[in-house]
Amino acid sequence: MTEPRVLTVRPKPDEYAWTFGGAPPVARVAPGTVLDLTTEDCFAGRVTSERTLVSEVCEFPFLNPQTGPFWIEGAEPGDTVAVHFVSVEPSRDWAASTTVPLFGALTSTHATASLQEPLPERVWIWELDRAARLCRFTARDSELVLDLPMAPMHGTVGVAPANLEVRSALVPDAHGGNLDTPEMRAGVTCYLGVNVEGALLSLGDGHARQGEGETCGVAVECAMHTVVVVELLKGLATPWPRIESDTHLISTGSARPLEDAFRIAQLDLVQWLVRDYGFSAMDAYQYLSQAVESPLANVCDTNYTSVAKVRKEWLPGGRTTYRGLHDRLRGTAASWLA
Amino acid sequence: MTEPRVLTVRPKPDEYAWTFGGAPPVARVAPGTVLDLTTEDCFAGRVTSERTLVSEVCEFPFLNPQTGPFWIEGAEPGDTVAVHFVSVEPSRDWAASTTVPLFGALTSTHATASLQEPLPERVWIWELDRAARLCRFTARDSELVLDLPMAPMHGTVGVAPANLEVRSALVPDAHGGNLDTPEMRAGVTCYLGVNVEGALLSLGDGHARQGEGETCGVAVECAMHTVVVVELLKGLATPWPRIESDTHLISTGSARPLEDAFRIAQLDLVQWLVRDYGFSAMDAYQYLSQAVESPLANVCDTNYTSVAKVRKEWLPGGRTTYRGLHDRLRGTAASWLA
Amino acid sequence: MTEPRVLTVRPKPDEYAWTFGGAPPVARVAPGTVLDLTTEDCFAGRVTSERTLVSEVCEFPFLNPQTGPFWIEGAEPGDTVAVHFVSVEPSRDWAASTTVPLFGALTSTHATASLQEPLPERVWIWELDRAARLCRFTARDSELVLDLPMAPMHGTVGVAPANLEVRSALVPDAHGGNLDTPEMRAGVTCYLGVNVEGALLSLGDGHARQGEGETCGVAVECAMHTVVVVELLKGLATPWPRIESDTHLISTGSARPLEDAFRIAQLDLVQWLVRDYGFSAMDAYQYLSQAVESPLANVCDTNYTSVAKVRKEWLPGGRTTYRGLHDRLRGTAASWLA
Amino acid sequence: MTEPRVLTVRPKPDEYAWTFGGAPPVARVAPGTVLDLTTEDCFAGRVTSERTLVSEVCEFPFLNPQTGPFWIEGAEPGDTVAVHFVSVEPSRDWAASTTVPLFGALTSTHATASLQEPLPERVWIWELDRAARLCRFTARDSELVLDLPMAPMHGTVGVAPANLEVRSALVPDAHGGNLDTPEMRAGVTCYLGVNVEGALLSLGDGHARQGEGETCGVAVECAMHTVVVVELLKGLATPWPRIESDTHLISTGSARPLEDAFRIAQLDLVQWLVRDYGFSAMDAYQYLSQAVESPLANVCDTNYTSVAKVRKEWLPGGRTTYRGLHDRLRGTAASWLA
Repeated sequence: MTEPRVLTVRPKPDEYAWTFGGAPPVARVAPGTVLDLTTEDCFAGRVTSERTLVSEVCEFPFLNPQTGPFWIEGAEPGDTVAVHFVSVEPSRDWAASTTVPLFGALTSTHATASLQEPLPERVWIWELDRAARLCRFTARDSELVLDLPMAPMHGTVGVAPANLEVRSALVPDAHGGNLDTPEMRAGVTCYLGVNVEGALLSLGDGHARQGEGETCGVAVECAMHTVVVVELLKGLATPWPRIESDTHLISTGSARPLEDAFRIAQLDLVQWLVRDYGFSAMDAYQYLSQAVESPLANVCDTNYTSVAKVRKEWLPGGRTTYRGLHDRLRGTAASWLA
Repeated sequence: MTEPRVLTVRPKPDEYAWTFGGAPPVARVAPGTVLDLTTEDCFAGRVTSERTLVSEVCEFPFLNPQTGPFWIEGAEPGDTVAVHFVSVEPSRDWAASTTVPLFGALTSTHATASLQEPLPERVWIWELDRAARLCRFTARDSELVLDLPMAPMHGTVGVAPANLEVRSALVPDAHGGNLDTPEMRAGVTCYLGVNVEGALLSLGDGHARQGEGETCGVAVECAMHTVVVVELLKGLATPWPRIESDTHLISTGSARPLEDAFRIAQLDLVQWLVRDYGFSAMDAYQYLSQAVESPLANVCDTNYTSVAKVRKEWLPGGRTTYRGLHDRLRGTAASWLA
Repeated sequence: MTEPRVLTVRPKPDEYAWTFGGAPPVARVAPGTVLDLTTEDCFAGRVTSERTLVSEVCEFPFLNPQTGPFWIEGAEPGDTVAVHFVSVEPSRDWAASTTVPLFGALTSTHATASLQEPLPERVWIWELDRAARLCRFTARDSELVLDLPMAPMHGTVGVAPANLEVRSALVPDAHGGNLDTPEMRAGVTCYLGVNVEGALLSLGDGHARQGEGETCGVAVECAMHTVVVVELLKGLATPWPRIESDTHLISTGSARPLEDAFRIAQLDLVQWLVRDYGFSAMDAYQYLSQAVESPLANVCDTNYTSVAKVRKEWLPGGRTTYRGLHDRLRGTAASWLA
Repeated sequence: MTEPRVLTVRPKPDEYAWTFGGAPPVARVAPGTVLDLTTEDCFAGRVTSERTLVSEVCEFPFLNPQTGPFWIEGAEPGDTVAVHFVSVEPSRDWAASTTVPLFGALTSTHATASLQEPLPERVWIWELDRAARLCRFTARDSELVLDLPMAPMHGTVGVAPANLEVRSALVPDAHGGNLDTPEMRAGVTCYLGVNVEGALLSLGDGHARQGEGETCGVAVECAMHTVVVVELLKGLATPWPRIESDTHLISTGSARPLEDAFRIAQLDLVQWLVRDYGFSAMDAYQYLSQAVESPLANVCDTNYTSVAKVRKEWLPGGRTTYRGLHDRLRGTAASWLA
């Protein structure tokens, strides 16, 4: 077995990107490269206590710093970049969550505009017990202290968008970006369609865990140490970000209203089965209508993100998708970790 | 232990209700009564082969027949009716699913109106292997034959709506109705706020299984043999339908656009924790944002339905909800089944 | 010329209907009958000063009282009832408007749910100068006093809904109801598709004037003295409420999200031109895309209502719609008023 | 009177911008400069007959060419750029409109995704009779030929967006862009908040006329000869694009779903009255609810745009807005045109 090329990146505070597209690449990497990365939390590490309010310590638009972008050698529009998450580990023993004025699902916002007063701005510092794999919640208004399982993930992974655009790192769309889905965890492979030469991949926004929908708009935000393998699938298109796990095929759609995000993800999964699993469109529509799981990802960002997933064991056997890349990377990654 | 009162109801074709509200009660039942029921499928049993198209054999609005309504003795506005599902079993060895013109999520509809041609109308007959607990899909356009686990549930359970209204059995809303969530299965207790004297409970629309979102608009539709226990909680309000399982508290919201259904369900779960688990609203908002599961129920009906659920093991101990009714009914039901 | 039959109805407080469908008819009327009616305001006349808050003086669901319903002799499903508004005149020299907690467009609501505090509840009493045709606004928080032209209209006109349903008088939908469009004024003819035998027509919710969208949820609400002629068009269907004025064809759509209401109204107007003006669907789509006016009606009710209208002078000549009824009624009404 | 500085710009085919933000300025202009411009149509002039389909002759993303951007000297974030439209005149005697697959309001789209076939792609060439001020429609499927009044306008005017973003010229948002409102016509002043130094103003997408909502997604698209005066208002912010005409104050909101666009525009108009006309927020909310006109702009672009407008004669007298700039520019422009 060949030793993989490894690129280690530890960005300094002024070395993050704040957009998808528009930022110069920090490195050129060949397909097959292992990226050993650190990412900062969505607050750029500035929310450190119950007294450090986002509105006071963060400067818009310098939110959601991204590690990258990486120029993937050989990537051209029409190709797919695959990002296999080998490991995603919180790099501090605490994480922060907050309410942010006029942001989140249970408040009016700049788009769902109202004349009401914003909700109070408040910070919760979560303790992370990395040995026990627990996130500890401490209530602000009572004595409640509760533990939830740690389930580290990246809120953001994406490439430069199409159409000459540059999008804020807070936006999820067809280029990926701020999808905020708990499915983006160690062990999965994320497929992203390439829109510009070099793809310009970046990732960030680590969450020690997150509920489905990210209701208040903010997860258990933490700095991460993350290892991924980057691969390139030439001549294979991916219209919307997809994820493959050992057990599931997972499509995403990001749009408003939320039913459009749902429609995109469901149609994408139909089309995935048509392309790779021998279904007609109508048969896939019927079969998935009975087989699909549809957890929400986020209902708070500039686009909402809906997930459509199906168990691989429920699909016809003897077929492969994305040229069998996920299984291959999984095996390789296992061998390194061993 | 007292033997429960059991009411057995086997409706004849002309004895179903087609609305929530507006139909005369078929029986008056005391709280604590066991209802041993049969329900017909949403097509009133008329779609029996690939050649029996809904548009030809079903007569609108005679879709989604409901068994009931039952007048719950003593039920008054402000109370909660609890429906504990003891068993939900398909009563035939086949089920039907279809596309219906201008109905479903991946088509324009009468509301999401377009000038495009409707999708083709098509029927799939699913075989139900009740011994093996499998639903067998047979593709229409290829040789694919695939099995999915049977997971029987009721698409519809509800009471008469508020505001003097009568709603079609196809509608989900605060009164329950056509929620179409896979959470409505054997072993759970559904809580419904009472809007009119007697509550007027009915249920129907059995599904051998259903994907989350019911994408094509139709599940694996089948006649059911279902046993429930009906209870009444005096002086306890339930704003939106809730479900309690052995493991989860589950809120629902039904509205359009889908983000409103999400908001309703998430807010309801926040308020549930505030009422019964000692959280402030802001703490519950934060905690649930990290702990909630948010699977979609339906994105095809006249209102869309979103689910918000949280593991009971993640909530503060030493507390009960709905006066401990679920655990009590679960125990009782287990004793009968034993 | 034959003298028209005139039915005068002055409902007592307990003689109003609160729903479309579900209420017994107050009279049977032959097509061609003139209805000389009074209607109460949406508050049932109870909001009479800045100190009479809706939440204190009104009892839900007894809002939006309707005069009627009237059983139209001979009306059957598939027919169209035409309501020609001869005159719509405020019957008091004041009107009331309010904010209502969790109701309106610039606040969270029960559907667009949030954790924020509701807006303050407040009443504005408007003076109506019927001679000068002015509505006088008096600010609550400053010395501003401003006059707007009186433009009387009915927020609500409708028939019993389809599908065995009964809907609150607060709901707009395909049966009409609470459309809340300023287009429903003296001089126009409203066409409503019949869903049940006798149609069961009623109307109410007079507004001395209303902005497009009814942003705060409440117009300049007043009791009315209204005269309409009711006609029946046998064998002619109307899928969504339509209005014909001397100058415009006007379609309405009511749904959520608002783009669905827009789609319904625009498609209905396309189909109107296809049926009666010799356009193909694609040509009508193109032509209306350049010719249509699209004012909003309400963005606050349980369904939002969007209007699509086109100038009759811009349509092909030598054609009639709805059998020329509007022009005929307009002439007749003019002769009475003369 | 000083002769104004005039900058004449006639872009060559490769001198257009395709985005807001991201393109280098074509000129630096001082406040007060008159820009004498030509703009190409949204198809870059390539759709010239019924046989030149967009999907065949246009290359995505090279749609909606913008003339500009112009660096406004002295413009900084927090300022407002004012664009006064002196004249907007079609520069050819024909214009084109089309359907575009999966684009428009009465079709499924890439976001409102469905499995249906797209509508047919079709071109209509409109004759422009500039002397008679008429746009002539020739039906494709019948002999109908119909004239509509010419009402020239710009679909697109905007500045570089905030948040480090670059947006396609097809997008409307807080920076302006593809608002597609018929209000953007000769005689009005458009106010745009500045997000980046120099503002980077551009405009394009001329329409000989357009219906409200731009239902099929494409207006009567034509090349324009347009004269504007550009001014800068230091230290005065404008949160969303606003327009002032001789008769109206006009706010815009762009978002999805459409009710959010409505909310933004209505709230913006409330806040405009609060800032400049002496209303409290609650009084403005009430008053505008009765006085506002709410025509739709577009319900087809990536964001939908809703307009809220109020007659200036209905506002308190003795007040000015935007430092009286509109009246001053109107007078100046009249003097040049004389």
